[in-house]
Amino acid sequence: MSDTRFDILAMGDAMVDVIAPASEEFLAEHKLPRGSMQLLSPEAADKLYDAMGVAEEHSGGSAANTMAGVAAMGGKVAFIGQVADDQFGRIFRHDLHALGVHFDTPPIPGPPPTGRCLILVTPDGQRTMNTAPGASHELVASQLDPQLIRDSAVLYLEGYLFGPEKPRAAMMEAIDIAHGANRKVAFTLSESVCIAERRDPFIDMIQGGGVDLLFCNGEEARVLTGAPSAEAAMAQLGDHVPLMVVTDGPNGAMAATSGETVRIDAAPVDKVVDTTGAGDLFAAGFLFAHCRGAGLEKSLQTGAIAAAEVISHYGARPEADLKELISV
Amino acid sequence: MSDTRFDILAMGDAMVDVIAPASEEFLAEHKLPRGSMQLLSPEAADKLYDAMGVAEEHSGGSAANTMAGVAAMGGKVAFIGQVADDQFGRIFRHDLHALGVHFDTPPIPGPPPTGRCLILVTPDGQRTMNTAPGASHELVASQLDPQLIRDSAVLYLEGYLFGPEKPRAAMMEAIDIAHGANRKVAFTLSESVCIAERRDPFIDMIQGGGVDLLFCNGEEARVLTGAPSAEAAMAQLGDHVPLMVVTDGPNGAMAATSGETVRIDAAPVDKVVDTTGAGDLFAAGFLFAHCRGAGLEKSLQTGAIAAAEVISHYGARPEADLKELISV
Repeated sequence: MSDTRFDILAMGDAMVDVIAPASEEFLAEHKLPRGSMQLLSPEAADKLYDAMGVAEEHSGGSAANTMAGVAAMGGKVAFIGQVADDQFGRIFRHDLHALGVHFDTPPIPGPPPTGRCLILVTPDGQRTMNTAPGASHELVASQLDPQLIRDSAVLYLEGYLFGPEKPRAAMMEAIDIAHGANRKVAFTLSESVCIAERRDPFIDMIQGGGVDLLFCNGEEARVLTGAPSAEAAMAQLGDHVPLMVVTDGPNGAMAATSGETVRIDAAPVDKVVDTTGAGDLFAAGFLFAHCRGAGLEKSLQTGAIAAAEVISHYGARPEADLKELISV
Repeated sequence: MSDTRFDILAMGDAMVDVIAPASEEFLAEHKLPRGSMQLLSPEAADKLYDAMGVAEEHSGGSAANTMAGVAAMGGKVAFIGQVADDQFGRIFRHDLHALGVHFDTPPIPGPPPTGRCLILVTPDGQRTMNTAPGASHELVASQLDPQLIRDSAVLYLEGYLFGPEKPRAAMMEAIDIAHGANRKVAFTLSESVCIAERRDPFIDMIQGGGVDLLFCNGEEARVLTGAPSAEAAMAQLGDHVPLMVVTDGPNGAMAATSGETVRIDAAPVDKVVDTTGAGDLFAAGFLFAHCRGAGLEKSLQTGAIAAAEVISHYGARPEADLKELISV
């Protein structure tokens, strides 16, 4: 892998997922568009939690899931994110450390408490996410360790955390530090809903050359650019981003540079149990292979394998031995 | 079912299980006898948690698992147990309420925090439990709602909580209230290790006629009575307990009254994933069927079906629809 201390350093939400099965009727009753993500106030989150069924708790957070995946494949990774000094914060820290992910962002005393994401999984395996971000959105630039950023070959940023003002400022500073040390910056758009209300900072950052590798899907690209089609959106973004990776769920994925476009099919899955983490683990597989010097096709395939594993069970982090599944 | 407001009211540990896979070598290194339960100080629990792998959190507690099972079968149940006002306490309360279990024991402010049980599951599915009881052992008699006890046909008591002094005093008072209202008292011995150091109060309570229905296995009966064999132990206990239910893991179970002894085989299981909760759910099935007026054989079989379901997945509470599996 890279000759830096870490292959990848991620900045993202620090969350515990609270996962329960739910019926289509439950989603309709609570006006939750299936497959979506919404931000909830603490009160709304409590109300939804009271209504939902028996749950299990797993560490989550999109970019943290990605780092968990890269660590499980054997990569050297680190994470920056904000938890509070509470039980959920300790769960989050424990689970990253147990995988060998470097994570030492000091907790804040709270309130707000560590963030949680109420995830409702319908019988077809689709997840609907309801996020009470809590401490996660309190991440400020002064919590950054500049040396950690300089010591990592890739800085990987989660779009969810680029919406709120404080963590966005921290991310902008981290991008400057990374580029100042000649490191690459990868960014995932995360979700069209979190882009829609705050297009300008996303666009400014990308047009300003902030991103060397962009993960997105067609819908996110379209919402971000305002282009009439996903293709047009990707063409626009491609003018500013050297490498784009575009996922399309069960239809596969593609990677595009100025000189090359590669498409692959999705990896086969026996039964889709819970789609939470599919995009996160796709990014993990792609980043791991890419950092190892693999070509675009191999990197895409590694992403597809990691995504297929994570959607075959509850929770957004790998349970099988990813090292045995991939061949990078 | 019964004409009381509740069929069964349980008193037991209020715990969140922290469940992770572990190797045989890990158990050996940390001197944890496989399949056992030990009580840990908060410091020892933190140390073990730091060492163990990526975990998932599920509500637990032996008698609480039993009530979750009875509720899932359609029984009217309630629970008394002590949590603290923290995130784990809210998980515990939520998951009981989501199943329709009545639970309104007021939380204590803490510290100590809500109890947790670090459960290590070896590849054969055997669980080794490491309990930091926390608030759970702070249950005191003044937290009891006497009317709730009088309103329940059966009071079900967990042996784990009969060890420590404060909750034991609360249980003794609850037994008096239940018997004073002409209710039945069921008791589970829980674990030989928790009996070994405190045989006298267990023996005194049982010999004093405190128990109408006793759940145990042969080893627990032997440790409790000091008899040379499980058979001799059961004969001794049978003098004081009108109905005994004795489980024997994969070898099945038996129920014995003064006039009748019935044995059954264990229910078939495709793959044992995690044995946590097997005894708890066996008790759930037996109690549910027994409260519905089923005979001993049918009650044992219902217990075996519920136990088989819970050991086929992670966590000590049913995931399948138990109503569909049983035929009471």
